[in-house]
Parts: sequence; C-alpha cells; structure tokens
Amino acid sequence: MIDPSERYRRHHGLDYGAAWAGLLSFAGLPYTESPDELAGVDVAIVGAPMDELVSDLPGTRFGPRAVRAATPTSAYHLEARIDWSQVLRVVDYGDAPVLPTDAVASHRAIEATVTEVLAAGALPVVLGGDHSVSEPDVRACALHLGRPVGLVHFDTHTDTASELYGRELSHGTPFYRLVEQGHVDPARYVQIGLRGWWPEEAELAWQAERGITSLFMHDVRELGIEEIVGRTLGIVGHGPVFLTVDIDVLDPAYAPGTGTPEPGGMTAIDLLWACRTLAAGLELVGADVVEVIPVSHGSADLAALAANRVVRELLTGLALRRRES
Amino acid sequence: MIDPSERYRRHHGLDYGAAWAGLLSFAGLPYTESPDELAGVDVAIVGAPMDELVSDLPGTRFGPRAVRAATPTSAYHLEARIDWSQVLRVVDYGDAPVLPTDAVASHRAIEATVTEVLAAGALPVVLGGDHSVSEPDVRACALHLGRPVGLVHFDTHTDTASELYGRELSHGTPFYRLVEQGHVDPARYVQIGLRGWWPEEAELAWQAERGITSLFMHDVRELGIEEIVGRTLGIVGHGPVFLTVDIDVLDPAYAPGTGTPEPGGMTAIDLLWACRTLAAGLELVGADVVEVIPVSHGSADLAALAANRVVRELLTGLALRRRES
Amino acid sequence: MIDPSERYRRHHGLDYGAAWAGLLSFAGLPYTESPDELAGVDVAIVGAPMDELVSDLPGTRFGPRAVRAATPTSAYHLEARIDWSQVLRVVDYGDAPVLPTDAVASHRAIEATVTEVLAAGALPVVLGGDHSVSEPDVRACALHLGRPVGLVHFDTHTDTASELYGRELSHGTPFYRLVEQGHVDPARYVQIGLRGWWPEEAELAWQAERGITSLFMHDVRELGIEEIVGRTLGIVGHGPVFLTVDIDVLDPAYAPGTGTPEPGGMTAIDLLWACRTLAAGLELVGADVVEVIPVSHGSADLAALAANRVVRELLTGLALRRRES
Amino acid sequence: MIDPSERYRRHHGLDYGAAWAGLLSFAGLPYTESPDELAGVDVAIVGAPMDELVSDLPGTRFGPRAVRAATPTSAYHLEARIDWSQVLRVVDYGDAPVLPTDAVASHRAIEATVTEVLAAGALPVVLGGDHSVSEPDVRACALHLGRPVGLVHFDTHTDTASELYGRELSHGTPFYRLVEQGHVDPARYVQIGLRGWWPEEAELAWQAERGITSLFMHDVRELGIEEIVGRTLGIVGHGPVFLTVDIDVLDPAYAPGTGTPEPGGMTAIDLLWACRTLAAGLELVGADVVEVIPVSHGSADLAALAANRVVRELLTGLALRRRES
Amino acid sequence: MIDPSERYRRHHGLDYGAAWAGLLSFAGLPYTESPDELAGVDVAIVGAPMDELVSDLPGTRFGPRAVRAATPTSAYHLEARIDWSQVLRVVDYGDAPVLPTDAVASHRAIEATVTEVLAAGALPVVLGGDHSVSEPDVRACALHLGRPVGLVHFDTHTDTASELYGRELSHGTPFYRLVEQGHVDPARYVQIGLRGWWPEEAELAWQAERGITSLFMHDVRELGIEEIVGRTLGIVGHGPVFLTVDIDVLDPAYAPGTGTPEPGGMTAIDLLWACRTLAAGLELVGADVVEVIPVSHGSADLAALAANRVVRELLTGLALRRRES
Amino acid sequence: MIDPSERYRRHHGLDYGAAWAGLLSFAGLPYTESPDELAGVDVAIVGAPMDELVSDLPGTRFGPRAVRAATPTSAYHLEARIDWSQVLRVVDYGDAPVLPTDAVASHRAIEATVTEVLAAGALPVVLGGDHSVSEPDVRACALHLGRPVGLVHFDTHTDTASELYGRELSHGTPFYRLVEQGHVDPARYVQIGLRGWWPEEAELAWQAERGITSLFMHDVRELGIEEIVGRTLGIVGHGPVFLTVDIDVLDPAYAPGTGTPEPGGMTAIDLLWACRTLAAGLELVGADVVEVIPVSHGSADLAALAANRVVRELLTGLALRRRES
Repeated sequence: MIDPSERYRRHHGLDYGAAWAGLLSFAGLPYTESPDELAGVDVAIVGAPMDELVSDLPGTRFGPRAVRAATPTSAYHLEARIDWSQVLRVVDYGDAPVLPTDAVASHRAIEATVTEVLAAGALPVVLGGDHSVSEPDVRACALHLGRPVGLVHFDTHTDTASELYGRELSHGTPFYRLVEQGHVDPARYVQIGLRGWWPEEAELAWQAERGITSLFMHDVRELGIEEIVGRTLGIVGHGPVFLTVDIDVLDPAYAPGTGTPEPGGMTAIDLLWACRTLAAGLELVGADVVEVIPVSHGSADLAALAANRVVRELLTGLALRRRES
Repeated sequence: MIDPSERYRRHHGLDYGAAWAGLLSFAGLPYTESPDELAGVDVAIVGAPMDELVSDLPGTRFGPRAVRAATPTSAYHLEARIDWSQVLRVVDYGDAPVLPTDAVASHRAIEATVTEVLAAGALPVVLGGDHSVSEPDVRACALHLGRPVGLVHFDTHTDTASELYGRELSHGTPFYRLVEQGHVDPARYVQIGLRGWWPEEAELAWQAERGITSLFMHDVRELGIEEIVGRTLGIVGHGPVFLTVDIDVLDPAYAPGTGTPEPGGMTAIDLLWACRTLAAGLELVGADVVEVIPVSHGSADLAALAANRVVRELLTGLALRRRES
Repeated sequence: MIDPSERYRRHHGLDYGAAWAGLLSFAGLPYTESPDELAGVDVAIVGAPMDELVSDLPGTRFGPRAVRAATPTSAYHLEARIDWSQVLRVVDYGDAPVLPTDAVASHRAIEATVTEVLAAGALPVVLGGDHSVSEPDVRACALHLGRPVGLVHFDTHTDTASELYGRELSHGTPFYRLVEQGHVDPARYVQIGLRGWWPEEAELAWQAERGITSLFMHDVRELGIEEIVGRTLGIVGHGPVFLTVDIDVLDPAYAPGTGTPEPGGMTAIDLLWACRTLAAGLELVGADVVEVIPVSHGSADLAALAANRVVRELLTGLALRRRES
Repeated sequence: MIDPSERYRRHHGLDYGAAWAGLLSFAGLPYTESPDELAGVDVAIVGAPMDELVSDLPGTRFGPRAVRAATPTSAYHLEARIDWSQVLRVVDYGDAPVLPTDAVASHRAIEATVTEVLAAGALPVVLGGDHSVSEPDVRACALHLGRPVGLVHFDTHTDTASELYGRELSHGTPFYRLVEQGHVDPARYVQIGLRGWWPEEAELAWQAERGITSLFMHDVRELGIEEIVGRTLGIVGHGPVFLTVDIDVLDPAYAPGTGTPEPGGMTAIDLLWACRTLAAGLELVGADVVEVIPVSHGSADLAALAANRVVRELLTGLALRRRES
Repeated sequence: MIDPSERYRRHHGLDYGAAWAGLLSFAGLPYTESPDELAGVDVAIVGAPMDELVSDLPGTRFGPRAVRAATPTSAYHLEARIDWSQVLRVVDYGDAPVLPTDAVASHRAIEATVTEVLAAGALPVVLGGDHSVSEPDVRACALHLGRPVGLVHFDTHTDTASELYGRELSHGTPFYRLVEQGHVDPARYVQIGLRGWWPEEAELAWQAERGITSLFMHDVRELGIEEIVGRTLGIVGHGPVFLTVDIDVLDPAYAPGTGTPEPGGMTAIDLLWACRTLAAGLELVGADVVEVIPVSHGSADLAALAANRVVRELLTGLALRRRES
Repeated sequence: MIDPSERYRRHHGLDYGAAWAGLLSFAGLPYTESPDELAGVDVAIVGAPMDELVSDLPGTRFGPRAVRAATPTSAYHLEARIDWSQVLRVVDYGDAPVLPTDAVASHRAIEATVTEVLAAGALPVVLGGDHSVSEPDVRACALHLGRPVGLVHFDTHTDTASELYGRELSHGTPFYRLVEQGHVDPARYVQIGLRGWWPEEAELAWQAERGITSLFMHDVRELGIEEIVGRTLGIVGHGPVFLTVDIDVLDPAYAPGTGTPEPGGMTAIDLLWACRTLAAGLELVGADVVEVIPVSHGSADLAALAANRVVRELLTGLALRRRES
C-alpha cells in the first residue's frame, strides 16, 4: 500500500499535499492493488473502466481516473461537520483489470475485484464505466450476502430492457437481468429521476408487474427531494441495499460529460443531499457511480466533479451512520 | 423519401438503428426534399440554417444539423406515456436553401419552404438559424391562414426593435416587423423569460402600447411555470398560434451554445414542460426553435440537445392534443 | 481617456458599436489609466489579474480581460428598468500593474491602484484575480476610510485559514488576515453560500469566536434567497461595507471556469438578484468579483459572463440607491 | 435518390448550395440507401461507423458523419486541374447498418453493404470506423473478384497481430486475418508510415516471412514521398489493389482526432499527393479511410478534414486514370 | 494616446509588464483611436473585425482582439537580431467601426480608417476580419497613392471569383474586383500557396489572361520557399506593393482557427521567413492578415498566434529595410 | 512498489493491460514512492508538478500526470527494434512533494527527490513543471557528481536571463543561474531550436562571452537535424551531460499545450530522432522534459503525447547504448 501523503509528511511535516501531485488516488487515499492489504478496511474504492456496452457516446473507460482527479483531498464535510476519514478507514483499491473489446471478461474481472473487497469485510464503491458494470457490482454483493439486495437507483433511464439491438448484455439491461436472476428484490427497488424517451411501454409494464417503484422527474419536481428520499427510505426499509447513481440523472448542465444526457434532470444540490441522507439512513452494502465521460481534466470536468462529490457524500453518510451506531 | 430505418429492417429485422448511423434526419424520421412527398404528413421539420443577421456571436448556420444529431431516435415520452410517432406522421423536410451572405434571399427561401409545408396541410417546425428566421416562418403561416396569428415567445430579449445598428433586418427586429405588418395579433402575443440588458424603454413602451404581454424572468421565478403557462393559455385563447423558442431563454448553464447568452434564465425542466403543455393546449399552426450554435457534437452539445427536446415536447403535446380530439 | 463609442459617433452617428470592436473596456465604458482623469467619476472598474496564490487550477490572471469581453455594451436593466450609465459616471480604469511570480509586489500594486480610485472619490469595483486580491482591495478601503468595514462575502469556502501549505499569503487566507488586521468588523461580516470540503473545524471555530455570520448553502436552499438577503441587510446594517463575490459560489453549472469548483451551489438568478438588492440597500464602499478562469472567449465563457453580470447588477443597485437618495 | 443541389436549382438556379445546408452527404453528392439506385454508378461512398474493437480512445463511430461534414462541396482539383464530378458518377450510399455493441453483426453488415456496391459494378470507398472495418471491406472485394487483392496500407501500426488482449477480432488484427484467409496477396502488400511502439518482434517476423513490404517513417523521411510511391507502384504492380488509409499515419499535428495518435508521422501534403498518385497509377478496386474521431464540428475538425481530402484525392486520381484510359 | 507600459514604469520602474494586464493593444504598443495622434507614426495596426461575407465558418469578427492577445510584448527578433520598436514608431490604432450585419457600411468604415492612417504618413497593417476586408484595405492604398499597387497574396484560394452565390461582395471576390477596378496591377500580382478545390477553370483562365502569377503549393513544395520568394521579388519589382496574408495559406495544423481550412499548406517557419524577407525587400505600402477565427484564448490560439507573428515579421522586415536605407 | 501489470497477470495471464486502467504510472511501469525500493533501478521517472514561476500561461502543474496518461504501455521501438524495458530497469518514482504557491520549497523538494534517485545509482528523468525545475534537476546531478555537467538544451528561449520582472527565480533564468553557480560547463552547453522574441542582446552577449553554443531554428532548417546532432555530439563530447527539453521547442502545431508557444519550431519527427540519438551517443546523467500544459486528456493531448515520446526515445537511446556497451 502506498500512502500519497507520506512524502509530504517526510519532506514538509504536512499531512496533505498538492491535489495534483503524487500517486493518483481518490481523495489522496492510501492505494493498494493487493487483496492482502484490505484487512481492516471499511470502504474500498474500485474503478470499473469499460464502455464497450454503450448505445451512444463512448468514453466512460476514462471515467474512474477522471473521478479520482477531481480534487480536493480533504474529507471534512462543511455542512455535516464530520470528517469521514476520521471515522472510516477508506482505501483506493485501483481498477478492475478490464479487457478492451471483451465485455464478458471485463464483467468477470469487475465481479472478482468487488468480491475481493467484500471478502475482506469492506464496502465497495465502484466508479464506472458504463452502467452495465452494475450487473457484476450488484451480483457480487448479492452472492456474497447469499440473498437479494434492495436497490436505490438514480437514473434518467430504467436500464431494464430485456435486450437492446438484439443483445442481452448492454448498459440498458443490467437491472432487468439482476431482478430476473434474483439478485435484486423488486419490492425494495426504487428508481429516482426517470425522464426522457426510453424505454417504452413494455419495460414499464414489466417493472410495474414486478413491483418496482418508479419515481419520475416530475415526481421529484412536484414532491421535492425530501419527500422523495423519505418515500425511498420507507420502501427500501431494513436489510442490505445497493445504491447506484447514473450521473445522467443530473441535468446535463450539472454533468455534461455523459453518454446519453437528457435535459430536465436533477440539480447537484438535490442529488448530493439525497446520497448523503440515504447512505446515513440505509444499510448500504455497496454502491457505484457510473457513466462519467471526461471532457476536460482535473476539477474542471463537471461530470467527474459531480461523481467525485457523490462518492464523498456517500462516505459522509456512512460516517454519520457509523458515529451514531 | 428515404426512411433511415429501412436498412435496419432489411439487414437486422429491427425497426431502429444506431443513432449515429445512416441519413441524418431529426429523430431518424423519413426524410424528403420533395414537396410532392408531403401529402398526408402532419408535421414537417424544416431547417433554416442562417446567421447573417446576428449582433454578437455567429454560428447558428450550423444549428439545424446539430439539433438533428442530438440523439436519440425513439419517440416514447416517459412521463406523458405517449409515442408521438404512433399518433402523428412526421417527416424531416430538410433545410431551406439559404444563400450565404444574402439574408434577403435566405428569408425568401425559408418562407417558400415553410409555405410548401403549409400548402401540403402539414404543420411546420423550423430549426434556426438566428431569430430573424421567425419573420418568414410566422409570415408564411399568417399569409397561409389569411389572418394574424397569436404568438407565444420564449426569449431573453423581446426582439422588437424597429432597427438595430441602423438596419431594419436583424435578429433583434422580427417581432416588431411581424406586428407592424399585421401578421401577429399583439393582443394574443405573450413573451416569457425576458431579462438582461436589451432592449430599452422605447421598445418596452411600444410593446405596452400595442398590448403585448411581457412575462419577465422575475415573473417566472415568483409565479412558477404553471401559473405562467396558465396565464399564457388564457391570453392566447382560441385561434391559431405560433410558438417561437429562442434557446437563450434558458439559463446559459442549460444552453451555453447560443449567440447572446444571459445568466439568470429558465431551467430546462420548466421550458420542456411548458412547451409540451402549450402545444397540447393551444391551436398551434407552426413553431420554431432558434439561436442554437453548436460547440460540440452529437448529444454532447447542450444547446442542440435542449432544442432537440423542445421539438420533441412540442410533438408530444401535439400528439396528446390529437389523441384527445 | 478614450471613449470607445467616439468612433461610432464620428463615422455612423451611433452611440454604440459592435461589442467586439474597438478598445476592450468593461461594457464599452470610457477607459483611462491616468489617476488625473478620475475626477468626478462615481465608479471605476479595476482589474487585478494575478493567480500566483491558488491551491488548485491557475488561470485567473486572464480573468479581467475575459470579464470585460463578456458582452453586451448596453446598460439598461430590463427588470429594474433603470440605465446605470444615465445615473452614474463609470469608467474602466484598466488593470493594476501586477508582476508575474511576485504576489507581494502585485498585492502592493493592486492596493495602490484601488487607493487611487478611492482618493478620487470613486467607488472601486475590482475584477480578480484569485481571491487573495480581496486583501489589498479591502485594506485599501478600510485604510481610506480610517475604520473597519462590514463585509458581505459570497463564496463556497470561507477563505479564513491562518495559513495554507504553511504559507500565510494565499487565496485561502485573506479574510482571516483582514479580520485580524482590524480592517473588517467581524460583527458586520456575513458569508453566504458555504459548502463542500474546506476549511475544517479550526477555522469554523475561529469564525464563531469572532462573531462572523456563516450562511451555508443548506441555509440558502431552505430559507430562500430573499430571507438570506434580508438577514444580511440586518446584520450588516448601516456603515461602510465591502462586497466580495467569489464566482465559485455559483454551482459549477453556472460558472465552470473557476479554480476550485464545488457542485451544489447557488443559481445565477439568485446571485444576480442578491447582488443588486444588496448594492441598493447597503452603504457600499467597494466590491470585487474574483476567481474567474476563462475557458472560452467572449460571451461564450460562462464564468466570465456571470461575473460581468454580477458587476452590472452592482452598478444597477448603486444606480437605484443613487436615484432614491 | 436525393440530390441535395436540386433545391438550390429550383429556388435559385444555382448548381451548388451552402455547404452546411440540406441533406448531409459527402461533397453534396446525390444520396441513396437503395441498392437498386446504384446502377451506372462509378464510385459509392459508404460509412462504417463502429468503434467497438479499439484498444484506446473510442469515438470513430462518429467518423463518417464528420468526414461528410468537412466541407466544401466543389470537386475541381486546383493543382491537378480536373473536376472528378465531371468524369465519374459518384454517390453517397449512406452507412452500413452497424449494431451498437455487436462487432460481429456490424462487420457482417459492412461486408454486405460493400458487396452491394461491388455487385452494382461500382468502386466502394469506405469511411471508418475503427480499422477493423478493413476486414469486411477487403474481404468483400476479394470475394467479389474471386482472388486475393494487393494492398497499399498507410498506417502508424501494422495491425497484423494475431490477437490483442486475447481476442482475434480487433482493430489491431485485420491484416493478419486477411492475409491468412487468403484475401490479400502478401507479395503485393505495402505498408507505409510505420513507427512508434507496436507491434513487436513476433509480428514483424511474421510479416517478413510472408513477404510483406514495410516502409517505416524513417524511410519516408530519408527517401522522400516520391520514391516511396514509386517503390509502392513497382511492388504492387498490375492487378486489383485495395488502398487503406489509417488517418493516424499523419502526424497528430495534422490529425489530432484519432484513437492511437503517434508523433513523428507524415505531413498532409505528402499523404494527399501520394493518395492521388497511387489512385491514378494502380488498378484500384476499393479503398477505406479509417480511425477518424471527431473532436470539433464541420471543417474545423482536422482529422475529419484530412480524411475528407484523402477521399477527394482518391476520386481525383481515379478521374485522372479514367480520362487517360 | 494611452501607453500601457506607463503604469509599469510608474509603479515598478519597468519598461514592460505582464502580457495579460492592462489595455489590450498589439504587442503592448501605445494605443489611440484619434487621427490627430498619428503624426510621426511609421506603422499603425488597425483591426477590421467583420465576417458577414464568408462562405463557410464565421467568427473572424473576433480575430483582431485575438491577434492582439497573442503575447508576448517584446520586439527583439532573435534570429534577425533587431528590435523593431527601436527603429520604427508603431501604434495600435484600434478597430475600424464596423457595423454588424452591414458589410457595405463596414467596408466604408474600414476604408476610411485605413485612409486616416495613410493620410498621416503611416503604413497600415490591418488585422481581419474575413478576406473581403482586403478590398477596402488595398483600395485605400491605391487611391491614396493615385496609382495601382503590386500585390503579394498568400492564400489557399485565389479569391478572384466575379461572384459567389450570385453576390459580388464576398470574401471570395476581392481581388477580382480590385484588379478590375484598376487598384491592383495584375503584372505585379503574385499568389502563393494555392491549393484545394476552389475556384475553377473560369477564374484561373481570367487570372492567366490578366497576367497574374500563380504559385501553387506544389510549387512551394518543389521549389522551396527561397526560390518562391526570389521569384516574387523579381516579379513585383520596384514600386508600391501591398501584402495580404490569408492565414489559411498555412496548413490547418499551424492555424486551425480559420473559416475554410485546407490540408496540405505551408509551414509556419516558411511563411514567417517569407514575410520578413518580402517586407525587407519590397516597397511595402500596406499589409493585412486575415481570416483568423479564435477558438481558444491568449497565446493558446494557434491561428491568432501565427497571425501575430506574421505582423511581427513584417515589422521586423520593415525595420531591417529602414536600418539599411 | 506496485506493479500495475500484476493484476492482469493474476486475472488474465496477460503481461499488459488496458492503457487507461489501474495505477497511473509512466508506461505502466512499477511505481514506488519509497527511496528504499530504488536499489537496482537504472532509470527513475520523477514528476515536478509546479508552475508558480511562469511569465505567461500557467498550468504545467498538471503536466506530469498528463505525460503519464499519454499511452501506450508498450516499450518496443518499431524503428530501433529494441525494447527498452528488456534492457533497463525503469520505475516511476512519483512526484516530488511540491508546495502550492511556494516555489522555493518546491525547488528544494525537487532537488531532494532527484538526489534520492541519484543516490540509488539511478538516472533521473524529470517531468515538469515549468522550466525553472531544471535548476534543482541539474544542480542535484552536478552536486552528486561533484563537477559541472554538460548540457544539451532544446528550447525556443535561452532561459538565461539574470532576472525577469525583477526576480531572480523564474522559468526564464535557470540556465544563467546554473552556469553562474558552476553547475553547468558553458563550453559543453549547446542550445537547439532558439527563435522568436526573447531574450535580447544582453543575454545573447552573456552567452557568447561564456562560450555557450547557440543553434537557432534557422540553423536547424538550413543544416538539417543530422548535422545539428552531429555538431552537438562534437561539442559536448565525453563526460557527464544533462539533457533538457522544453516542449515549446516544437512548433505549436506539434505541442499546442505549452505556456509560451512560438510558431516556426521543430517537427516532432526531428526532435524524437535527435533525443534518441543523443541519448545513445552521450554520457547522460539526467534529463527533464518540461512546460507541458494539458488541454485535453489521455493520448489526445498533443503536448503531453510528444513529451511522453521524448522520454521513450531517451529510454530507447539509453537501452541502445547499454546494449552496445
């Protein structure tokens, strides 16, 4: 394990350094690629840099590095007044060893890497990658627990098609597959932020039949984010839950760098508050943030910046929950 | 007429294809440049790619292609739960044959092309182009109907100067001219979203005198979009109406690619809902969406994306109205 | 002094010209670099183009020119219905003669240039530059008045660290220094828009101890901007006050071009209204708008555009106050 | 078939129109997606918009539209003093119906579409797409002719790996496969412009063993482009030949928008001259230009612009050859 | 007149300042908009910021400011070892007062402004603007001298059409008009760098008939720049000459920001050397550099940077000539 | 030490992985930040990410990460036919712990980090950072050797001012200081590629007096790169030598992302060949590549890509030399 702040301590007696210097890890966290070093870790960040399964603009393969490079390194939440790095032991576990052009092998590698995290007793937070990576992410959690998980799903699209362009494997199908495979409990599955032009009646009918809860953007707009989060907490209730955030749930103004942007989405302030509150209020067993395509670099890339902050809010929520327990 | 989905049907038995492949038409619609093929068409998309009459950043000549390239191809509205392509026959009628550097000839070509659509009994939806194109757009409608039309006008600016830099023809003058020429009924003319630094007292005085209704951004902010739309429906009432959307009515966060951006504007979610509701509630005879300057490509261009969605909401509103009638 | 509209008058008999032509000054104002020409001036725009004291992305040295280039030139406020150029005599006084790589000399030059404006009886509005420029800006005002000033401070961060990376001089420390040096009265100091991940408990404790009022983004979200402005007016009350706007108080959607963007911030419509209202309601003695990094050019640069409009709203507020007095 | 100049003739009596208006076709050519309309056509442009098989930056799926949008529409070659549109009947045949995420199906669709062109007696010029599309391109030609073809191959890389990341299908393997399948005659196969860091000894050894001619960038630099082209003409000699241009053969200064750029490459002036000369001197049966990733729009995208000009030089060379025969 | 270095002298005792600070003038030169202050001036820089007459991408209206902002401020030529600012008195005379959307009035304003420079005995160097501005530029010189001038013309295109899209006024027609109006002596008119796809036989025939010398890019490539410049000096010979540089004569790699880029052009090193040598060897009476469209800012904009350097090389050539005389 | 290929070996049995996945190190090399792990290492890559001492555009603080991210990971040189990773043991030693806003402390940290590499017997290759970092880079080498070193210096500018803006520490002064401090032997100091507008006579006179060899761009153009390299080898001769490459020696077409670009520079093909040849022919003791400002990401950033390749050519040259010895 390499701790990027070590050099700063040695040279300057400082616990922190320049955000752009040294090993690139999420929030300047200690970094390891060895499963043996995960012992005692509470949360591990894992990258899943693939984009072979997209239906429009590719580029999410560059997402995880971009999310890591969206500074800063500090961990104190100004509004929640808690420093997650003081409460949780978090490491950056690097990226799953994806294989270019081979989505099946990449999914296998992602599932294996997430499973290494779970096996060590840590909670995985995965940085996508296209949304297809949620399939190995959630499956690893469900298989590790030996039971279906609840799901909170922020997205423009439902991603519950049974196939897309005649293919079962796609960034538009993971949640159909996870429900059908029994890894997600549809009664504890809440979608938030749906809008736009896909999918169609067939998918919505399947969702209704399965008992999935769909909260559209017009619901968010009319009810307010507090009510949306309140309902979600009620529906998901107790028991293990996975949280997946497709960054395109945000209005493209807040996250232009994504593959299938859809105007009319959530604001950053709402999404960030919701993520922190859900992480504090639910029994989270894993999370991912997906569909970030960098178009600029460092903190100048808005989608990567937003995804970085989503992860930080999750960590803050986890820290709040830990402190209260 | 060329139907871009034909090849997909022939090769793959699919009714849809990759959004970036094949003939570039709005939403993958059948495309024709022949007036003879407009028979039976309900709505025709027409491009008006000119920018010779702007007072700041040019580039809207590239707007229509950019709006077409802002995917996807599907037509099912996730919140309204209707597929406009199942209710209306819509085609892409290509661009009016504008002439570089010759605004007068371009206006003539735009008016002629819109008139071809009207003559076939179809409703024209024009993709600008700078806002001067509304002059031929609306004139064609009013002349076709033989009477003045009502006007719903989303914009930062009133575009009602009598001249700009000493010129009568400009993207800042179309609505003065249309009212003065008797093509727009000022009592049924509502402006929404006004703000910023232009025009000045003289123009506002003329507007007041003519009985035009001006709803400023502070009105939108204080009253809410539902009330704004409600008042608009009341003022415009029955009778033919044209809807014109200058994309700069959006805050530049939502549509940075435009020639005279002004901070403090509408959100995408409000504008999209308003367009759908107005199209469903009014007797629309034509519409245009203008002032898009592409700065990126495909769905990554936010202004083009927003304009694309404005058109889709109009089509959805028209489909809702058709279904109810 | 050079008046850019002079050529247009001479050649065309017009009082205004193309926004992109002629001497680059704020809003096309008369431009001078001579202190002798400040007599009778009400407000002088001053650039402070430095960025040597930043902790993340540099580039604010290019801010002042970018803010000036964010058109238009007109001065009539469409909602307030007042033309500040008819009420106030405003000039562009150019940039302070900063020295590359020498922050101390640059601060000295900024303080001297602002003092020249104050000595002439004019109110300085400074275009940054990184936020460290507020130190010479405010100090010049306080020293000129011979007493501490109140402070209204829009920002994501408090900028009240006692040091950063072991350095006292930084864009993260100006307000600690100004309070400690006695130039700012902490009881009349209100911060608005705080959020994110910096600073930490120590700084917040110092602020509380000193009696500084901190209004976080969750306050803005829950109370609404009217209440925030109302409270601010009450706390600051009578007496001289400086207004400082770090453009990163805006959500990055509205001002992506800045060095330490933080999602979840203010909307442009709120910030602009607040600035105008505060300028109209307070006894303003100076102002600055900082941390703009241009990433595009002309009015296409959103952060520069927003900063340009902040200045215009301040001028409008000052004009309203002048008219009422 | 739609002829984009028809509207200009009808409205303005002009044989040409604005480059950015009307149906998007290569050089404003007549456009069809129907095989029945290929009779009598000399050359057909075909798009192959896929990028699922790349090893680094994706995005070539947007290449064909970008190459088409790189204006102008005119066809007269200023140095060769010939107008290819007067000598050859060229049409734009649209894009092969590729399927997102399904490279095998896309290859099949590309091969079928190219075969339709060949069956009509026309010469296909394919716009990629990643370089894997050369496999169906060349195979279609060889199968149509019933014999192996010669190959002139401009590229940084040899693309002759037997596998990449354990996969046979890739943009790094097409020419290994084509030679091994017997579709390309290695004795008549010349590579031009090789440089950089891939592949390695094994691939070079295979090439040498097979008798493929490799001309590296140091050869181009030392011998000059005239000598390189002269040698190529000698080696390829008589008989059918396919010409494939990976745009990354250009130095990235000339074509930054590509997936695996490598500094130290060819200049545009050399490549363009070489393509024209080879097309005039060889018995061309097909060609493709691949690996263009648009990063801007219209003629502002340098890689698309270069690829557009490569196609035009090929057409000019074919016209010169036709005129001489 | 404002001298931007004055503040630096006053505050720091330095003769130069930060390139990005203070009044924006070419190379930090003294700036005036008053004809009365041109007495004793050797060279005056004039902007002509218009783009209403272009046939493809607009945006050259932003060219002059961009060329000015392409630093640095120093004037010593490292290879020629001469400081033009020590030999010549050069000022920045600002921009001609162009009128948006009114090309005729803008041409009139440009001609008047250039005439003011000539009347003061100074040599004008004009920053375009689209290439149509050469018409007023050259006409002003010829009328001032009372005789036709010679012309050295670097360009991809000849710009000698008699009309374009049916219009006489265009950026494709100025040199036809200037020759036909008798302002340019065709026997002393040399074009350098021609290539690409426009114009056609008719224009080339007219040129040949008139005795204009056309040096194509294949000539530059085969003969070398020294021979090209040598021939040009011979053909133009003694007598007044105007030099016009369309920045698109450069390969787009060197100047991507232009409206009609054409691959296969000149290198910057050749163009810069040629401009200096021609300015030193000819009897220059005026010059312009046109068709720069900024796409970035400051010295990061390659086309503006190249144009800035073209002007500096001209000034250096003029200084060499002055020193030798 | 972390070896990024380890995960690929473990999961897939491959020795290499996706260029964008896993720990970000130069060319996918093993990465360490511990001096204890440098034993047995031949070459160590070190980042020096600072930009506080620039005179124009900042941003080189982001250079080292950008150079690392410019793929690919392979090490076989296609023209030299050698794999440097098979001949040399190279590691990425991370970045020196620079301190934002504190150039003195950053220089100290850089010198200490380079000294750690030298102390371990390895050769340091430093990625800048602005050119001021050469001062600690070269000083560390000279102090380690206990004698002055020769210097080969590719650059547009001499960087030999005694001060800039009144400051001794700057990116324009390192080589004056190094010579004056006795760390560089001026008789063995060769500058290559000089051109443009800075410095002036005084600096050139000092250089001549000290016996430094200056090869201007007109020398490169007239003599050819082979002759330039030949002369350099002759002048530098035997004995330790440091090689410093300011990426702005390239024409901005090849490296637009740099702070003081100057048109008319070297081509990439020349620079790369020269670096390899010099590294193979000289007794290199250290090297740096500086002044890269990323403007895009991954291999799409041309300046970072060029700098990455400069380092690879140096490694190839070192491997060639090692193999021959």
